[in-house]
Amino acid sequence: MPGNSLGRRFRVTTFGESHGPALGVVIDGVPPGIVLDLGHVAADLARRRPGQSAITSPRREADTFEVLSGVFEGKTLGTPLAMLFRNTDVKSADYDNLRDTYRPSHADYTYDARFGLRDHRGGGRASARETVGRVAAGAVARQVLLAQGIEVVAWVAEVAGIGSTVDDTTVGRQDVDANDVRCPDVAAAPAIDAAIRAARAEGDTLGGIVRCTCRGVPPGLGSPVFDKLEADLAKAMLSIPAAKGFESGSGYGGTTMRGSAHNDPFVPGPRGPVTTTNHSGGIQGGISNGMPVNFSVAFKPVATIFSPQSTVNDRGEAVTLKPRGRHDPCVLPRAVPIVEAMACLVLVDHWLERVWRPAG
Amino acid sequence: MPGNSLGRRFRVTTFGESHGPALGVVIDGVPPGIVLDLGHVAADLARRRPGQSAITSPRREADTFEVLSGVFEGKTLGTPLAMLFRNTDVKSADYDNLRDTYRPSHADYTYDARFGLRDHRGGGRASARETVGRVAAGAVARQVLLAQGIEVVAWVAEVAGIGSTVDDTTVGRQDVDANDVRCPDVAAAPAIDAAIRAARAEGDTLGGIVRCTCRGVPPGLGSPVFDKLEADLAKAMLSIPAAKGFESGSGYGGTTMRGSAHNDPFVPGPRGPVTTTNHSGGIQGGISNGMPVNFSVAFKPVATIFSPQSTVNDRGEAVTLKPRGRHDPCVLPRAVPIVEAMACLVLVDHWLERVWRPAG
Amino acid sequence: MPGNSLGRRFRVTTFGESHGPALGVVIDGVPPGIVLDLGHVAADLARRRPGQSAITSPRREADTFEVLSGVFEGKTLGTPLAMLFRNTDVKSADYDNLRDTYRPSHADYTYDARFGLRDHRGGGRASARETVGRVAAGAVARQVLLAQGIEVVAWVAEVAGIGSTVDDTTVGRQDVDANDVRCPDVAAAPAIDAAIRAARAEGDTLGGIVRCTCRGVPPGLGSPVFDKLEADLAKAMLSIPAAKGFESGSGYGGTTMRGSAHNDPFVPGPRGPVTTTNHSGGIQGGISNGMPVNFSVAFKPVATIFSPQSTVNDRGEAVTLKPRGRHDPCVLPRAVPIVEAMACLVLVDHWLERVWRPAG
Amino acid sequence: MPGNSLGRRFRVTTFGESHGPALGVVIDGVPPGIVLDLGHVAADLARRRPGQSAITSPRREADTFEVLSGVFEGKTLGTPLAMLFRNTDVKSADYDNLRDTYRPSHADYTYDARFGLRDHRGGGRASARETVGRVAAGAVARQVLLAQGIEVVAWVAEVAGIGSTVDDTTVGRQDVDANDVRCPDVAAAPAIDAAIRAARAEGDTLGGIVRCTCRGVPPGLGSPVFDKLEADLAKAMLSIPAAKGFESGSGYGGTTMRGSAHNDPFVPGPRGPVTTTNHSGGIQGGISNGMPVNFSVAFKPVATIFSPQSTVNDRGEAVTLKPRGRHDPCVLPRAVPIVEAMACLVLVDHWLERVWRPAG
Repeated sequence: MPGNSLGRRFRVTTFGESHGPALGVVIDGVPPGIVLDLGHVAADLARRRPGQSAITSPRREADTFEVLSGVFEGKTLGTPLAMLFRNTDVKSADYDNLRDTYRPSHADYTYDARFGLRDHRGGGRASARETVGRVAAGAVARQVLLAQGIEVVAWVAEVAGIGSTVDDTTVGRQDVDANDVRCPDVAAAPAIDAAIRAARAEGDTLGGIVRCTCRGVPPGLGSPVFDKLEADLAKAMLSIPAAKGFESGSGYGGTTMRGSAHNDPFVPGPRGPVTTTNHSGGIQGGISNGMPVNFSVAFKPVATIFSPQSTVNDRGEAVTLKPRGRHDPCVLPRAVPIVEAMACLVLVDHWLERVWRPAG
Repeated sequence: MPGNSLGRRFRVTTFGESHGPALGVVIDGVPPGIVLDLGHVAADLARRRPGQSAITSPRREADTFEVLSGVFEGKTLGTPLAMLFRNTDVKSADYDNLRDTYRPSHADYTYDARFGLRDHRGGGRASARETVGRVAAGAVARQVLLAQGIEVVAWVAEVAGIGSTVDDTTVGRQDVDANDVRCPDVAAAPAIDAAIRAARAEGDTLGGIVRCTCRGVPPGLGSPVFDKLEADLAKAMLSIPAAKGFESGSGYGGTTMRGSAHNDPFVPGPRGPVTTTNHSGGIQGGISNGMPVNFSVAFKPVATIFSPQSTVNDRGEAVTLKPRGRHDPCVLPRAVPIVEAMACLVLVDHWLERVWRPAG
Repeated sequence: MPGNSLGRRFRVTTFGESHGPALGVVIDGVPPGIVLDLGHVAADLARRRPGQSAITSPRREADTFEVLSGVFEGKTLGTPLAMLFRNTDVKSADYDNLRDTYRPSHADYTYDARFGLRDHRGGGRASARETVGRVAAGAVARQVLLAQGIEVVAWVAEVAGIGSTVDDTTVGRQDVDANDVRCPDVAAAPAIDAAIRAARAEGDTLGGIVRCTCRGVPPGLGSPVFDKLEADLAKAMLSIPAAKGFESGSGYGGTTMRGSAHNDPFVPGPRGPVTTTNHSGGIQGGISNGMPVNFSVAFKPVATIFSPQSTVNDRGEAVTLKPRGRHDPCVLPRAVPIVEAMACLVLVDHWLERVWRPAG
Repeated sequence: MPGNSLGRRFRVTTFGESHGPALGVVIDGVPPGIVLDLGHVAADLARRRPGQSAITSPRREADTFEVLSGVFEGKTLGTPLAMLFRNTDVKSADYDNLRDTYRPSHADYTYDARFGLRDHRGGGRASARETVGRVAAGAVARQVLLAQGIEVVAWVAEVAGIGSTVDDTTVGRQDVDANDVRCPDVAAAPAIDAAIRAARAEGDTLGGIVRCTCRGVPPGLGSPVFDKLEADLAKAMLSIPAAKGFESGSGYGGTTMRGSAHNDPFVPGPRGPVTTTNHSGGIQGGISNGMPVNFSVAFKPVATIFSPQSTVNDRGEAVTLKPRGRHDPCVLPRAVPIVEAMACLVLVDHWLERVWRPAG
């Protein structure tokens, strides 16, 4: 199990290096008979694409994709669905100086430590470009979920300490995409936009927090005791490049509450118990309880900065690095569709696991 | 893959209900030829045990264990190592009132939603009692790691907002176990102890944060792109009962830093590059870089409180719950060995995965 | 994935050495709400037990078992079901001479080669005693299958070249268990019985063939392209000690037929297509077609014989081995319930995989 | 785990339909730093290709392939290695009559039963065309094995009952490829060739047996108790289209021997114990013993024949089928490289699993 696959029932495998011939994704376990909307996939990919706005990386990927298998006459076959993404706008020469130099807080040194060699061009396998396959697979998962009434919405909640106020019970994609920042708080968004532009002007980078809500998740998704829904969400989110934290429900903030205030009282609802608060984030004992599944993901500031840095090369010598290449001053706006995709992958996996109904 | 196993190379499966005949753990993938120190296992179990101090649950589990297989003449065989824990001090009648009632923020309703039935006694499979097998397995893993010079130390960093100051480069188990709270800050520990006693006196409960450091982790542990070291740590930690958050390295706090301050500069070290700061928490691109692996886990306040609560029963009717049974006012002191155990399980799994060396 | 587990949805893990404290099995993925009949489990175990007749090993295992978890008030919980088998009638001293000697065609040398050490007593982990957990797990699986109208029947078809004629469309357990040999051909059974007694009298051993039919298997079980139903059956059968061959449907005999004779014509049936012949053994393209699933398993003669043998010890020296201990002159009669158990485990795994229905 | 992946350490996933845009394979777990010889891959693919001789299907696949990832400057990166095979010479109109008709002994009906729909063109996912990815992956595995001195050779041992005599200790690829039949017995090959031509002239098809030997396999490969080397070989072989049987070592023939004759005596060898006979087929207790690993695979006669057949359509009506399309009168010659590829995949998986050495 060498690490490039995720999921048990809806199993996603990605492949490809940033500057190799192509990247791709294979999904094994797509339910058969789904009418696949490729426009939906393209729309999700467009949200992830660099060069989509003034505050993202200027790398221009068309992100055109080709479906290679698993679909016949518009419907999924139940066989592996493979999608291919050719690499086109690669400027590999930009990376020649990185062949023997380890960029700070990148994966250069650690890939060498793990494998004994690496493709240094554009981050190789560790590039955020790898997430293109995740987003495409997530878009397939999302179509399965939407047919079940499950909706996943993420947004930028905070950048560089600039917070926002968002009603997670109503926020939708149109609110999120109303500005380049993907922050649906109309007061916070311009402040964040300005902060990103200011950081970029200084050759620096910013981090922040994405929040996500999953509405319509039925009760009973999640498998004790290790494959808890929030455990699988945590893993999926921490597998995103630059992610350094995960909270489910009340998260770190909830640690300062008392149990009497934190507990979510049950009251009768139209289709089963509901809770009057949702500090649990829709998950109790690792299993969904029918309330919205809410969580957040922390992203560190982008490691590629535009000022000289002290580092070492692969011969162990101290050197000074002058970064080149094309990067985002802040990954948060483009992280939103990635967080959504990973959430869709985890939810569809658990939904497929759950479909079997008790005998009694 | 129904959820009760963790790990790929050092694969742990736990079984058992809180008030059933027994709990247990099977480890498949223990390296052969290890001289197993059962006293070490017993010592780790003693730290997890309820009734160990004035601020933990009065349930008295001897936590005696029996090794059923996988060991011959004191050495591991490379075959599955099974350990058994009999349930003894069970007071199942304490739980009769829970047969049809869903406790708020417990797993009662969600287990019913998942499986259509549940063992309501003592939380059944969702009980924190299940972690006994994790701690025992972690103690086996720890022995493998210690032989490689890898040391794992966790402690209570915060309870109910009461923080602490701990030097994570030097803190050891004797510091942690110097007080009942397992907080090595001698100023904070008494304050936390008092807060826990106060909460208990009011029938209420507290949450908090455990921090953990793993020293001596060699560079190169972790598998891109999904089985990243911090992704697997996140999953392992979020699979612990009551865990609601995970941070790797700088975590949420790091989101407010700029890249130029957050990046960890490399400098030449005696056995390869080292970094002068460790915001990365010892992991870059999902792979260890040789610096200490640092992370934290957030625990919500215990859901069992001693005041009446509004809830519903399994017929959908509103009822009032008066909890009984025996529980901790704060899980943090006992969570320390569990966090360590889960860290050991993840690290040994990745260490075994890594042992294969490149051909060149 | 270190080798002691089988199945994806109904996942069985066995543990234990022949002369260690105990053996056991953990099943993760048992459907919840099944009324478990422990008498059914005991009955299957009794068929596997040594000492059950004049032609089996005299080792006397009571094979009493204890259910440790996963069952509450007689019903399965959907949580891991663990069963324990204590080792009692062990005569470990019988094996002292094997501590450093490799028995021919046993697993002594290969376990040393794999692990660097072994438990030499009674075959250790490689003992046929390990199958006790398989049979118990198979009995749980069989109850799930019987509720779906799926019936699994195996029998001894051939021993030492003495064949039999059995109508696989009607043969039932009562026919199989009508004699000690478990061969339902009343002419062949006495001949086989005599052959086994004659071999035992000479201190020698015999091999043979078990056939198995699975009736009532619905169409659609099996997953292309690697997890084909017959591929998983082949793996399960070749994992039984002493198994050296597997045939599905016409098997080796079918290789001499022409396609025009081997093809199974479809004709309309009451609940979908049926075939007028069944050379396919109920499986086409790796997926069941609704006809009985038929296969055979070849077992080599038992390796423990009672005459001196030339071999080597763990220092590489040539030595002469005089075997002691208690063994069967022919494993075939006791292999019948093991083959059935493994078939049940594979079928229930694929049945659980299949339950999800196409959307259209 | 939906069925299109094989292996735990060297994990192969194939995708693609026979008449879709492309087929492909992703290998996760290729050791890093291997100098990959693409000519070696092409050579293995050429042996599998239809149209290679007068006695195979006339479908002309160039089987040109593209490496999409996992290789940099000629060396493997340790990241997923993906290979793509475009479908070119597809004559889908040949299959229009199969849209609603179930060919006897094909996978048409069973795919419908499994998935509710299928791609009827050229067998869709169930086509032997799928094996192109297996052979390519096997060629990568073979390069890893050859560097360890492990050599895998298969040949046609029997067709339509016409047997052969081959010295499995010396036979090499040049012997096998000396004739179109791939039978290294110079007397048997012409007879088999004639039989295949005669069957084709009559519109009929033949089956047969492939044998395979793996030399240089070190002792200690294979994992008790379910992932035995021969269990994994059995699964891999039975996953090949048209395979219906598997024998390890003496197999079915060995069932008529007595233990005293079947046991393989150990004698001291230059690098450990060797056996004077090899009825075990190089595997004892599921683990390799250092002797050649020998096995056979039975293939049924090809299901596509050129005479009218009675069958049913997807509305359950009896119809008469007149097959069209392009097929082999006998798959055996082209099965040889597929059997070798599957053997290489299993061996490399176990070799990688084994590399970790005991501590003591």
